[in-house]
Amino acid sequence: MSGKPGEGKSGTKPKRPTPNVVGFDALRAMVIGCPYHAWLGLDLVRLDEAEVEIRMPWRAEMVSDPTVRYTHGGILAALVDLAADYAIAAKLGRGVPTIDMRVDFHKTALEGEALRAIGKLIKLGRTLAVAEASVLRESDGDLIASGRGVYLTKAE
Amino acid sequence: MSGKPGEGKSGTKPKRPTPNVVGFDALRAMVIGCPYHAWLGLDLVRLDEAEVEIRMPWRAEMVSDPTVRYTHGGILAALVDLAADYAIAAKLGRGVPTIDMRVDFHKTALEGEALRAIGKLIKLGRTLAVAEASVLRESDGDLIASGRGVYLTKAE
Amino acid sequence: MSGKPGEGKSGTKPKRPTPNVVGFDALRAMVIGCPYHAWLGLDLVRLDEAEVEIRMPWRAEMVSDPTVRYTHGGILAALVDLAADYAIAAKLGRGVPTIDMRVDFHKTALEGEALRAIGKLIKLGRTLAVAEASVLRESDGDLIASGRGVYLTKAE
Amino acid sequence: MSGKPGEGKSGTKPKRPTPNVVGFDALRAMVIGCPYHAWLGLDLVRLDEAEVEIRMPWRAEMVSDPTVRYTHGGILAALVDLAADYAIAAKLGRGVPTIDMRVDFHKTALEGEALRAIGKLIKLGRTLAVAEASVLRESDGDLIASGRGVYLTKAE
Repeated sequence: MSGKPGEGKSGTKPKRPTPNVVGFDALRAMVIGCPYHAWLGLDLVRLDEAEVEIRMPWRAEMVSDPTVRYTHGGILAALVDLAADYAIAAKLGRGVPTIDMRVDFHKTALEGEALRAIGKLIKLGRTLAVAEASVLRESDGDLIASGRGVYLTKAE
Repeated sequence: MSGKPGEGKSGTKPKRPTPNVVGFDALRAMVIGCPYHAWLGLDLVRLDEAEVEIRMPWRAEMVSDPTVRYTHGGILAALVDLAADYAIAAKLGRGVPTIDMRVDFHKTALEGEALRAIGKLIKLGRTLAVAEASVLRESDGDLIASGRGVYLTKAE
Repeated sequence: MSGKPGEGKSGTKPKRPTPNVVGFDALRAMVIGCPYHAWLGLDLVRLDEAEVEIRMPWRAEMVSDPTVRYTHGGILAALVDLAADYAIAAKLGRGVPTIDMRVDFHKTALEGEALRAIGKLIKLGRTLAVAEASVLRESDGDLIASGRGVYLTKAE
Repeated sequence: MSGKPGEGKSGTKPKRPTPNVVGFDALRAMVIGCPYHAWLGLDLVRLDEAEVEIRMPWRAEMVSDPTVRYTHGGILAALVDLAADYAIAAKLGRGVPTIDMRVDFHKTALEGEALRAIGKLIKLGRTLAVAEASVLRESDGDLIASGRGVYLTKAE
């Protein structure tokens, strides 16, 4: 590290993570109670103050290209969206509607590869929240996709 | 319409749409040949020089919230991604990898509602292409979601 | 155009554009009353029910690369953001805060090239609105950048 | 933290940060050598293997709303874009063209507030790279904006 004299690291507030208002079992019930998540085979595998982690096994109907047989981008987009959503749900005790999202695709997930999606809060506000997520290959932690979304936190 | 004198509509080139290099049957074979698309029940219903249009029926496993029963955002994201992709595929004769995408969610799609996704090219280059898509409710054409993505057109 | 029998163009509602609530002079006063816009040299050149069009001349301080001398991406991003914003402002009579935005860069704008940014509403709601914009080279209408954003329409 | 037995934290590879190929002075010369950056008053204030940090003082021409006097979103978008770009430049020794970017706006930056933009690499590939950036208020580290972009790393 190097820098000009007198201009060091910015005075970032020590981050006090927002406390969770739901425990592991309650959040897990929300994750697995959604019909599309059941079809995807999702399970919550970790919840702490900083992150939620969701596991997705592989299934043949997720395949995009019939010859190369990689997992469809729409499946990866769903993982980014929902992992970011549950990172907010852990702080609010309820899921929130997605306003918009962005996904970057880094590497293909191939046949038989289970994935882990890790969601993290960026900013929690009374009207809106922003959260991000990374999708990793379970076997070696390689980054498959990542992204972020904006969610409506205001109860209507 | 009104404007300052002498400063009218910008000199937009008359848009000559890039010609398609595949016909309806060949593109339809690509759409329905993908295992995830088969699970979604997709079908190509229209192809012209300007747009591709894909139909998706509803199925119970697409549901996000078990009580309100709206279609999962990951399903809508898949529709935006693939309709934009096929708008490019019509010009190149092959599908292209998605680099990244954005989806805006405008309205929930409810139980039993079939959807139409319309893809359109924005810019076709030798390395990259950008395309957009809208997802409409079939019954009345209401806008459910829309978005855009960047795709890698350079063959590797 | 071709299609399967009985499955034609989706039943898109004939689009009735949302009426404008401000005229050209009032919207122009908003555009040019912003200090950064004054620095950019912006002017409103067209307003109709469907689109707003804003002109930006070139200035030397906008340059990114000192040798190739193309206009900085941050300038193009500002154009996308503000043209989309004024497309909403025309319908509401006031500017709206940007929640998030996406910009795709298609081609570099070079030294001396004036640009036109065209904004268009995608969806206007009571809490949120989505709008898009394209940035064209004035001389020939070539597409330089395009994008979209989400805006907060709810007055706080 | 809690979790189901036998399903702990995913096997994320210990991240070996990609080494920088340029030092602080060389990267700083790149940052300040760009005419738009000179106008913005940017300076590189930190470079390490994980992050680049750039400082921007306030100036009156950056203001968006003439009464509330907050900094224009296009200025914040430029900061996100360029901080992410220099996070890649530190690894390659050259700036890279932005393909597309997303910015989330979290809080307004008010009159007189200097900002810090921190860029970080997400994924470096031979054709493409993805990087992210956060814009903080210098005085207290509050998060003002954040985002990410895709960049073309392939030399043409």
